[in-house]
Amino acid sequence: MNLNIRLVIKMLSFVILLLAIAMLPSLLVSLIYREFSTAIAFIKIIVPLLIFGYITAYRVKTISTKLGLREGFLIVALSWLSASLLGSFPYLLTDTIDGFVNAFFESTSGFTTTGASVISDIENLPKGILFWRSFCQWIGGMGILIFAISILPALGISGQRIARAETPGPSLNKVVPRMSDSAKILYAIYIAFTLAAVALLLAGGLNPFDAFIAAFGSVASGGLSNYNLGIAHFNSSYVEGVSALFTILSCVNFTLYYSAIRGKWHDFFTDRELWAFLLVLCAGAVLITGNLWHTGSYSSFAESLRFGFFQTSAFLTTTGHFSADFNLWPAFSKMVLFLLMLIGGCSSSTGGGIKIIRIVILFKLIQRGFFVRLHPRAIVPVKIQGKIISTEVMTGVMSFLCLYVFVFLLSSLVLSFENLDLLTTFTATAAVLNNVGTGLELVGPTGSFALFSDFTKIYLSFLMLMGRLELFTIILLFTPSFWNPDR
Amino acid sequence: MNLNIRLVIKMLSFVILLLAIAMLPSLLVSLIYREFSTAIAFIKIIVPLLIFGYITAYRVKTISTKLGLREGFLIVALSWLSASLLGSFPYLLTDTIDGFVNAFFESTSGFTTTGASVISDIENLPKGILFWRSFCQWIGGMGILIFAISILPALGISGQRIARAETPGPSLNKVVPRMSDSAKILYAIYIAFTLAAVALLLAGGLNPFDAFIAAFGSVASGGLSNYNLGIAHFNSSYVEGVSALFTILSCVNFTLYYSAIRGKWHDFFTDRELWAFLLVLCAGAVLITGNLWHTGSYSSFAESLRFGFFQTSAFLTTTGHFSADFNLWPAFSKMVLFLLMLIGGCSSSTGGGIKIIRIVILFKLIQRGFFVRLHPRAIVPVKIQGKIISTEVMTGVMSFLCLYVFVFLLSSLVLSFENLDLLTTFTATAAVLNNVGTGLELVGPTGSFALFSDFTKIYLSFLMLMGRLELFTIILLFTPSFWNPDR
Repeated sequence: MNLNIRLVIKMLSFVILLLAIAMLPSLLVSLIYREFSTAIAFIKIIVPLLIFGYITAYRVKTISTKLGLREGFLIVALSWLSASLLGSFPYLLTDTIDGFVNAFFESTSGFTTTGASVISDIENLPKGILFWRSFCQWIGGMGILIFAISILPALGISGQRIARAETPGPSLNKVVPRMSDSAKILYAIYIAFTLAAVALLLAGGLNPFDAFIAAFGSVASGGLSNYNLGIAHFNSSYVEGVSALFTILSCVNFTLYYSAIRGKWHDFFTDRELWAFLLVLCAGAVLITGNLWHTGSYSSFAESLRFGFFQTSAFLTTTGHFSADFNLWPAFSKMVLFLLMLIGGCSSSTGGGIKIIRIVILFKLIQRGFFVRLHPRAIVPVKIQGKIISTEVMTGVMSFLCLYVFVFLLSSLVLSFENLDLLTTFTATAAVLNNVGTGLELVGPTGSFALFSDFTKIYLSFLMLMGRLELFTIILLFTPSFWNPDR
Repeated sequence: MNLNIRLVIKMLSFVILLLAIAMLPSLLVSLIYREFSTAIAFIKIIVPLLIFGYITAYRVKTISTKLGLREGFLIVALSWLSASLLGSFPYLLTDTIDGFVNAFFESTSGFTTTGASVISDIENLPKGILFWRSFCQWIGGMGILIFAISILPALGISGQRIARAETPGPSLNKVVPRMSDSAKILYAIYIAFTLAAVALLLAGGLNPFDAFIAAFGSVASGGLSNYNLGIAHFNSSYVEGVSALFTILSCVNFTLYYSAIRGKWHDFFTDRELWAFLLVLCAGAVLITGNLWHTGSYSSFAESLRFGFFQTSAFLTTTGHFSADFNLWPAFSKMVLFLLMLIGGCSSSTGGGIKIIRIVILFKLIQRGFFVRLHPRAIVPVKIQGKIISTEVMTGVMSFLCLYVFVFLLSSLVLSFENLDLLTTFTATAAVLNNVGTGLELVGPTGSFALFSDFTKIYLSFLMLMGRLELFTIILLFTPSFWNPDR
């Protein structure tokens, strides 16, 4: 069967149109701050995008509107890729980032809600560009919610929404009508969180610009800031608290909020993944706080708790915020941060990483492994919240985990060509693959990804996309059988 | 059902008797080198072991000789544990190693063929003790062959011998008769390899003592040496070549040699795992040699190849030999070494690590994952050498891999309490879990495990046992359902 290329192009043209519209707020910010050259740069890219998008959207005739699996994968991958490519133009046209590779890295980092940066002095950038940089994350976070909640189950990628009753069927053609029903409510929640974060930050004394930037970074699990010191710039435990609160809220499965709104509080409070998430969060905070206090890294328990909790939430939610130079922390605390990074947020949230539900299934499977050793003939299904997980879903989760470990190790090998210390190499890989954006050593709080070569930056950009789109979506496009399915 | 404790004790008493007999060669070495105080120490431990072993072996009456799964696990775990415990007495009685924890670590490192050491100046030890230290590895290597070939399949731990026709049945009671048939041939091969290695090393100008020590280290995949510089002491590419050859031969599945002896050369040359092993070996050697040459780490290509190939074979076979200070090598070479360490040797060999066959299955599974994404309704069995791998075996392999990653990360966390750099922490964990014995940084070629605290040394000793006995065997004993199976 041939790919329905026309349909793919038509869908992408809508992405281009949406991207042009998404640049309007940044144009507005440029005008407000009287940055006219930045504003002109935005106009220079918005106008062609609108024209091009309009032509392809309304002039390309599609013979069939049938969406197959392959078209679905292609649309998802190309949407993120084209957003990242086109999103780099504002940086290039304003000369704020040097060279296409750097601009593409920064743009991809935004749309994938990674928050890794190649810019060393952020504070010098025009406000319009700073706003665009952070707004990309916010758009990316919204995109990932559609992807995780509506598109992913239709593409048959399991591991998310596993134990829920209303798992959508496997037909891609139902995505659009379903999206119009529930997605609107999900967006309303996402927007409400953003506005609530802005309001609370304004109440804490931040100016509107800073409040929006900080809110975007938190709600999207991105973590980009408009200050070189990041959140530490404000040196306010209130700001840190608000940020941490919204990073955590955004890392909860959004379908749970939907249940809660419909009055199904029982679903909300009995969700196994949510409890596991909170447990990991508390465990991480207790371990790091205890270690910081015990080793005397901070003068008081309160300080240890403040920095320990904030950093735990920033890494578990894959936001990558920082309020302290944790490169100076003891080895144990750094190890906990590294592990939190891999775990990541809940499924169907803006968080990245392996995802809590997969870790829960992993544990159940290991537990089952022990049981089977002693009772080789027993048939033991793996259950979550009383529901049996099908062999298919389990194999799906397992093959994801195996692929994850493989991609992580292979990417570390690719990065080791840079001949940096291996800890930088490992944590840079983890920071990018899990969409955290901050690692240890040279890519830690005081570091930047500018130190990598162009080749590595492009590789890392693809790794961000891979991590964000659950690995398979991107790698599939590089398999021969994708392009030749009848082989 | 109650555990048949009497039978477990009876079986362990045979282990004790065998251990006493295994000390006789070391006693002989002590006498030859006129180390009479060492000889007396050996007699002081051999005599009580013989008496105690004899009493428990022939005086404890067993009511039933039925071996259940739980008894099987217990016997295996306690055999290695008691050998490690009792094997530490020669060190303690001769005062060559300070304190029980250090002696236990060194002894466990031997019996698990890890080859990690807490002794900083090896060359000062009495010959009898040096011989014992290396002989423990040789015994351990022999033990692991029985374990992998006869006991493991009976315990239902899959992942080894998967694609072979003559997979033994699940009954433990058949282990002993089967052992008397084929195991004798396997031992003959192991002994023949050892003697061949000794002969080739003697031909290379080594004295008999050095030749035996080097042969034990290679054939058992242990890597302990009687020189502080290890194999580099001889500074001879001939000695390195012979060592590498026998580490590689010992990391091939021993049942293949059995097939070859019976004239089934076809089985030998079509074994998928063997080819994968050789492929990884060549790939590792090419990558490291290329990197060393390209970065000018050595003056000539020949030198790069010599050190690159030797170190590749030493790490892939989990021997842990070293002929150069690879801490000074570029990051890429170190990363390759780290990856080789995790992969390990073939199944049913003396090599440790994850094992090649599991990596092959992992790849097949990832491949299948991609196929299933595009063809969600297709039923795609995973095949190796044309044989379908059952879902049971696959889940077994997967749960092993998941448990492996979990144990690795958790152990790294435990080790990070030492507050050493994280690369030392990660590679010390990997070196011990995979029974390699050499890592990077502080546990690299010039380092020693003496720097760890007593608590960590005991933890690491258990980790060696865990890694050697395929994880489940040791961890099972710590699960409540092992002791209370009817729950």
